Amino acid sequence: MGSRFPFFVFQIVGYKHSGKTTLMEKIIKALEKEGLRVGTFKHHGHGGFPDIMENQNDSEKHRLAGAVVSGVEGEGLLQLVGKQSTWSLDEVLSAYESFHLDVVLVEGCKAATFPKCVLLRGREDMDLLDLPAVEVVITKETIKESWSVPCFRREEEEQYIPWLIRHVKERRS
Amino acid sequence: MGSRFPFFVFQIVGYKHSGKTTLMEKIIKALEKEGLRVGTFKHHGHGGFPDIMENQNDSEKHRLAGAVVSGVEGEGLLQLVGKQSTWSLDEVLSAYESFHLDVVLVEGCKAATFPKCVLLRGREDMDLLDLPAVEVVITKETIKESWSVPCFRREEEEQYIPWLIRHVKERRS
Repeated sequence: MGSRFPFFVFQIVGYKHSGKTTLMEKIIKALEKEGLRVGTFKHHGHGGFPDIMENQNDSEKHRLAGAVVSGVEGEGLLQLVGKQSTWSLDEVLSAYESFHLDVVLVEGCKAATFPKCVLLRGREDMDLLDLPAVEVVITKETIKESWSVPCFRREEEEQYIPWLIRHVKERRS
Repeated sequence: MGSRFPFFVFQIVGYKHSGKTTLMEKIIKALEKEGLRVGTFKHHGHGGFPDIMENQNDSEKHRLAGAVVSGVEGEGLLQLVGKQSTWSLDEVLSAYESFHLDVVLVEGCKAATFPKCVLLRGREDMDLLDLPAVEVVITKETIKESWSVPCFRREEEEQYIPWLIRHVKERRS
């Protein structure tokens, strides 16, 4: 599958408000319906991580005491929190390896070289087409007529969701 | 190291209010001071998992859409949340394998067979001594005079913390 991970990695990239999270949710639902085990990852960017920082549970106490990774499990939910100065995407994806996943969808991480879907709000976002491994484009406006990769308009959901699912299923095998 | 994991696993077990979390924090701090990379895990028991459930961040949206594992990273903090019907301790520990840890301290999970420290509040807790692989005991009250494993009183922190650190360091190598 052209990846050193035991799952297919597919990225959804685009600038702010290009619809990444909404598209992620739709693809996850569709892949899960097909019986695939899906993992997801999102780089939170700058501006902190309030949801974890505010948790004063025991796992958080462990982390504050100096644990590199602290985990807690209850009722089928496992939460792991790891702390180091920086994380490469490869390091992050390594942590997904034990979960027997078919595919991991990555929201963002533009510069990474995994196969990707690019979301364009308009002509001003066209620099994203120069990113490595762009395999499909979804645009809000018509930008140009001919594309070297499949291109859909944002309202053509009934076309591109099945296309993406087929693409991921083909690529993972 | 007698474990199929690339780190030493050591358990801290005891009934409620026996001082497990406090001891965990002290050992984590001491091991971290020694330059070891420490992971921790706690089984949350029954009664839900409010800290995660209340987070309505994007990672949570991914999970609700059907992702088996959803992750988010920001400013050096990586949070992974996995959902399946149940988790064995071995499955949980497998997820720690990519973090290059020296030791994983497990709070609870009495029935697991990893080397363990047992905390006794009093005579009524003595059934815990029948657990597998008890290697050290810390008691609140004097219960009996002779022990087949090292035994400390809870106030003898200056003795048992260095003992535990030495023990973990020896066992992991």
